[in-house]
Amino acid sequence: MLLQLSTWQEIDAYLERSRGIIVPIGSTEQHGPNGFIGTDALCPELVARGMSEKIDVVVAPTLSIGMAQHHLAFSGSITLRPSTLMAVVRDVVRSLVRHGFERCYFLNGHGGNVATVRAAFSEVYADTSFNRHAGNEPEVRCQLGNWYDGQRVRALSKTLFGGAEGSHATPSEVSLTYYGWPDAMPEAIRNTPMAPRIAPTGPILDAADYRRRFPDGRIGSDPSLATPEAGEKLFHAAVEDAIEDYQRFLAAA
Amino acid sequence: MLLQLSTWQEIDAYLERSRGIIVPIGSTEQHGPNGFIGTDALCPELVARGMSEKIDVVVAPTLSIGMAQHHLAFSGSITLRPSTLMAVVRDVVRSLVRHGFERCYFLNGHGGNVATVRAAFSEVYADTSFNRHAGNEPEVRCQLGNWYDGQRVRALSKTLFGGAEGSHATPSEVSLTYYGWPDAMPEAIRNTPMAPRIAPTGPILDAADYRRRFPDGRIGSDPSLATPEAGEKLFHAAVEDAIEDYQRFLAAA
Amino acid sequence: MLLQLSTWQEIDAYLERSRGIIVPIGSTEQHGPNGFIGTDALCPELVARGMSEKIDVVVAPTLSIGMAQHHLAFSGSITLRPSTLMAVVRDVVRSLVRHGFERCYFLNGHGGNVATVRAAFSEVYADTSFNRHAGNEPEVRCQLGNWYDGQRVRALSKTLFGGAEGSHATPSEVSLTYYGWPDAMPEAIRNTPMAPRIAPTGPILDAADYRRRFPDGRIGSDPSLATPEAGEKLFHAAVEDAIEDYQRFLAAA
Amino acid sequence: MLLQLSTWQEIDAYLERSRGIIVPIGSTEQHGPNGFIGTDALCPELVARGMSEKIDVVVAPTLSIGMAQHHLAFSGSITLRPSTLMAVVRDVVRSLVRHGFERCYFLNGHGGNVATVRAAFSEVYADTSFNRHAGNEPEVRCQLGNWYDGQRVRALSKTLFGGAEGSHATPSEVSLTYYGWPDAMPEAIRNTPMAPRIAPTGPILDAADYRRRFPDGRIGSDPSLATPEAGEKLFHAAVEDAIEDYQRFLAAA
Amino acid sequence: MLLQLSTWQEIDAYLERSRGIIVPIGSTEQHGPNGFIGTDALCPELVARGMSEKIDVVVAPTLSIGMAQHHLAFSGSITLRPSTLMAVVRDVVRSLVRHGFERCYFLNGHGGNVATVRAAFSEVYADTSFNRHAGNEPEVRCQLGNWYDGQRVRALSKTLFGGAEGSHATPSEVSLTYYGWPDAMPEAIRNTPMAPRIAPTGPILDAADYRRRFPDGRIGSDPSLATPEAGEKLFHAAVEDAIEDYQRFLAAA
Amino acid sequence: MLLQLSTWQEIDAYLERSRGIIVPIGSTEQHGPNGFIGTDALCPELVARGMSEKIDVVVAPTLSIGMAQHHLAFSGSITLRPSTLMAVVRDVVRSLVRHGFERCYFLNGHGGNVATVRAAFSEVYADTSFNRHAGNEPEVRCQLGNWYDGQRVRALSKTLFGGAEGSHATPSEVSLTYYGWPDAMPEAIRNTPMAPRIAPTGPILDAADYRRRFPDGRIGSDPSLATPEAGEKLFHAAVEDAIEDYQRFLAAA
Repeated sequence: MLLQLSTWQEIDAYLERSRGIIVPIGSTEQHGPNGFIGTDALCPELVARGMSEKIDVVVAPTLSIGMAQHHLAFSGSITLRPSTLMAVVRDVVRSLVRHGFERCYFLNGHGGNVATVRAAFSEVYADTSFNRHAGNEPEVRCQLGNWYDGQRVRALSKTLFGGAEGSHATPSEVSLTYYGWPDAMPEAIRNTPMAPRIAPTGPILDAADYRRRFPDGRIGSDPSLATPEAGEKLFHAAVEDAIEDYQRFLAAA
Repeated sequence: MLLQLSTWQEIDAYLERSRGIIVPIGSTEQHGPNGFIGTDALCPELVARGMSEKIDVVVAPTLSIGMAQHHLAFSGSITLRPSTLMAVVRDVVRSLVRHGFERCYFLNGHGGNVATVRAAFSEVYADTSFNRHAGNEPEVRCQLGNWYDGQRVRALSKTLFGGAEGSHATPSEVSLTYYGWPDAMPEAIRNTPMAPRIAPTGPILDAADYRRRFPDGRIGSDPSLATPEAGEKLFHAAVEDAIEDYQRFLAAA
Repeated sequence: MLLQLSTWQEIDAYLERSRGIIVPIGSTEQHGPNGFIGTDALCPELVARGMSEKIDVVVAPTLSIGMAQHHLAFSGSITLRPSTLMAVVRDVVRSLVRHGFERCYFLNGHGGNVATVRAAFSEVYADTSFNRHAGNEPEVRCQLGNWYDGQRVRALSKTLFGGAEGSHATPSEVSLTYYGWPDAMPEAIRNTPMAPRIAPTGPILDAADYRRRFPDGRIGSDPSLATPEAGEKLFHAAVEDAIEDYQRFLAAA
Repeated sequence: MLLQLSTWQEIDAYLERSRGIIVPIGSTEQHGPNGFIGTDALCPELVARGMSEKIDVVVAPTLSIGMAQHHLAFSGSITLRPSTLMAVVRDVVRSLVRHGFERCYFLNGHGGNVATVRAAFSEVYADTSFNRHAGNEPEVRCQLGNWYDGQRVRALSKTLFGGAEGSHATPSEVSLTYYGWPDAMPEAIRNTPMAPRIAPTGPILDAADYRRRFPDGRIGSDPSLATPEAGEKLFHAAVEDAIEDYQRFLAAA
Repeated sequence: MLLQLSTWQEIDAYLERSRGIIVPIGSTEQHGPNGFIGTDALCPELVARGMSEKIDVVVAPTLSIGMAQHHLAFSGSITLRPSTLMAVVRDVVRSLVRHGFERCYFLNGHGGNVATVRAAFSEVYADTSFNRHAGNEPEVRCQLGNWYDGQRVRALSKTLFGGAEGSHATPSEVSLTYYGWPDAMPEAIRNTPMAPRIAPTGPILDAADYRRRFPDGRIGSDPSLATPEAGEKLFHAAVEDAIEDYQRFLAAA
Repeated sequence: MLLQLSTWQEIDAYLERSRGIIVPIGSTEQHGPNGFIGTDALCPELVARGMSEKIDVVVAPTLSIGMAQHHLAFSGSITLRPSTLMAVVRDVVRSLVRHGFERCYFLNGHGGNVATVRAAFSEVYADTSFNRHAGNEPEVRCQLGNWYDGQRVRALSKTLFGGAEGSHATPSEVSLTYYGWPDAMPEAIRNTPMAPRIAPTGPILDAADYRRRFPDGRIGSDPSLATPEAGEKLFHAAVEDAIEDYQRFLAAA
């Protein structure tokens, strides 16, 4: 059930059945020579839609722009400052709480969002924590899950790509987008040979430094290994992982 | 050319040809008994994609969550506070300026965004206006265009729906989404009879007041008139209107 | 009744009779070769005082500094960033709500304020809209009216100045200040011939760009036509327009 | 020379002669049974105008709304939060620096502003202090002077009112406004007998506490002693004090 | 009783006996040729600990970093912007109010903090002042006391150092730290002869300006007179002064 | 070398030798029945001082108040909101960059700080990343290291306390403070028997929820096992771990 494609009466009815919601959150940033700039938003969007086809859950629109300051030296990358992203997450959660949502699961596609989104959750909680008479406020729980961090996905990535997986512009995430948007990337680009085959690794600092260290944008990966077929397998694994994690979150005391 | 489905090298190449970009911006809010909650985001997304199929322009990911505080008494509506939305727009524009984009056209689908987005543009300009030595800064121009405000669309809406168009949950915007997402809304809901047929009108204040005034969410409209066929016509009109307005913006001295 | 020239007991008594207040809001910015820098603040102040002489209404002190970032390349112009002006408007409204004012009418003299002030109203409303238990909060309505936008004023400006009215440093607003402050501007300056007679028009971006486009500060106008006599007529028209609009606002359901 | 009643070309010319400016800053808050709510803004405005008639100095529009949170339990009082007032002062100073003003003298009428305005000055300075390459930035100095704190005014207040001066709604400030706005306050109110004759004193905390401690708004004063005649003497003393302090500020190394 | 060295149960028990707390607040900034960079934080920390050995009071951890923008041209100085320090003070007070603390005494060691901390107190009070139904909120009082401003300390400093006391890097504060940290400063540095013996005085503006005016960091002082013996006397005087002031604060109606 | 006990000239000299600095950062929050409220600040302070006795490094004053919103239902806990802590970290880093520090190592004692501090680093980097002409800005690197996360400490904790270590109010951190402040905690409290012996575990949400889940404040631990002797061993391990990590950070390309 996609929030954007529902009516408010349908959401009212859903809230009688469940108090949980999935919010896909990603980023808009370079993903190396053959990855989509939207990779980190497209992946959680795809997985969240997969979830909604299997279980009764509402999926909010994807927050497509995340914290990607380190990618700004590559054309097309867009970032929110961490303080802006925190404000966005806080407003979104407060809007959902207004309707009675009590469990907000952020399905994330971008490592660079993790710290900021977690800090934002604490900012949300602090609103009630400072209040000594907070008893009659609605209780909300927020959780962040990375689609790429589940057990099935981790195992599959290892099997498929081993030491070529790396940590940015990975063949796994690129495969997932090739599966989801099979016609969007020309063959010529898909098969770009990488040089060096495995990209370097290193710390992530500011944008100019990032580009010096990682000249084509990749970190530690060889995304020329990406295929739609691998993407399909990863998709099913990711949906299962995410459903499991979400249901554990819903069920938790 | 969709930013999310491009590589950074493709954007580099694009920037050799053009310095303009389209940023669809919408809202996630109730749209009456038979309109999608995502209407205001889906419409500019659809139109922007239509533009990108006709002219050489990059389309950024849709900013799906806008300023919708007045809709919060209806389930599923999500808002950013105006101050948050201003920070988002400012960060997005500053990111684009970083790459050399000089003309940022926000294609808007929600009247409630207009004031805040315009204020955000001034916040962006103020950054350089305060600087008496601003000469070597990149110059940027921002413009807001509402997809529903072009000449062709206005004329067509009038012809199609006359006095039943109203101002929120209009048959025009609902038609456009039925054209774009033909299978998403069950027939039963599409054909919901409205009571009263034409919704009331009035001022927009806070959320509780809005719900008192407009009990099913519509303002002045009868969206039961919406059809995919009308949506198709509106789509073509909107794409033409928006291309015209964007090209005028690009060409302006 | 001017707030600044009243005692708190008089305001207490007024609140027994009415819940409305006028807040004049303007700007401090260049107004071409023969216009006062304070034009946009002086005009609504004058009109608001005129209103208070005809009807029982409290007039707050004028917010003289508005959003004028685009004028900063001309000496004497002062701006608040939009985010600052929003905070000011919010604090003012919250102060008034504290006392029981329920209808705050901002009588505006500067087009550049409109977007920001409207965004600020939404920021105020959002405070209660996020609150699902908002019922016992005081209800407030905010409205923005431009003194120059009423029917009588528009008609009169057209009659008096026709195509020389323009949109910044207009003969109408300059006339109004000549009527209000007849001795402040030397004849020599008042009668400055304009070159070109009608100023150019164009978009408003940042300060450096503004100065390049509009070298003497005017947009589309010939303020050398301004006279105190025209100002007097405009004054009476503006007071009538504003009273009508304010009373409609007070009476609205 | 009043900024609001000047043209930008006149300010350009002034900047050839001087780099100083006076910014009157006050507050809009209750001033006891017979004091104007605008007292703290009217006084510095009056004194600043007096200065401008004696020396060649530009006077900015009065910042009429200051930090008056403690007065909010009395009708008509309006406050900015300290953080808002800091943003206002910072934007005003940055605007003035843009034009080449180098010495900004804030002539203050309200004790409650002092801490916040001083903090704002440090916020302004910090902008350049953090910059290790700040050499080419314009240098600005800000100073706060209270019109009531000069030697002549202090001596005169003591002579005129002795132990009845107090610290809020003082006979001195009330006298000054009676001199400046002789017709605004009806005799009946002017001569209100005070009970107790001298108001209590105590700490200033939040608004509800303030009203409990100081039921009619005064602190330590008997403003029934105020007269226009005393106001006239205080006016001349204040203008002399302020000119002396301003010229010392301009001349300082 | 030091908060950091207590358990939460001990604080619970303390709150049965008292509602007051001491929060030492200082700064980390250059203190001339022979003063510790931590002087302004070490002094109130030492005095607060002395207080806690004589009376039953909880001492919070020292806020060691204050508002020191003007010292940034000297290595090792660290500042918070005033707006940041205000947010810190507000969060600290709100945390303490959460537990039932009702009187928060900030024992300060740095003149540069005074304006900002006072502004922060008003920001705290404003939270309740804006609320017309604030009755059931916990009431809190905040007070700022400078350890160096008590009667005993002022008299002693005058006796010990007379005209060599100055206002920054004073022999009094340096002595106090020599008493508290006797081994931390090598004799060679302690006895540095000052040139000129008494440092210049002048206004405090931004960091670059400060360094030009006060090349070795001192203002008006000769800290080569500082000794641990003088520090010991000052310590006892300061503890007595601060206890007296704190108890007056606790007892106040 | 402690920053607080140094002169600015000593820091100047240090900067000739090194561009690195240690900033201990902790929290002020309940630590169960027998742990100090200051545990999370005291531990990194102790370890950082240990580092400075072994290698040539400057240690900044401890940031004692961190992000501890979830502990606010226990008396004595103090928090900064995440947004406030981000502003603090940003101002501290910008101050250090002003002097030429290029590697800022935050030695952390509190898991609750991690997300916010990392987000703050990105906020710092974003300042330069948005700037397309950032080349001449000083480059800075920030790193967060938890004193309890090094290899030696992890191994030792496991050996000493096994499954009783838990994650809040751990016997390891409590031991370290007993070693550092041997006389501060009465034997009676140190030996408090815990009930249940091992505290429960669970998610961390807001303050009221935390107290319901973890009634005496511990999570998963039995801190009655803590001893000064264990603390001494942990101290040496932590100093070694932290030195190793810091030197790796300094040496990194």
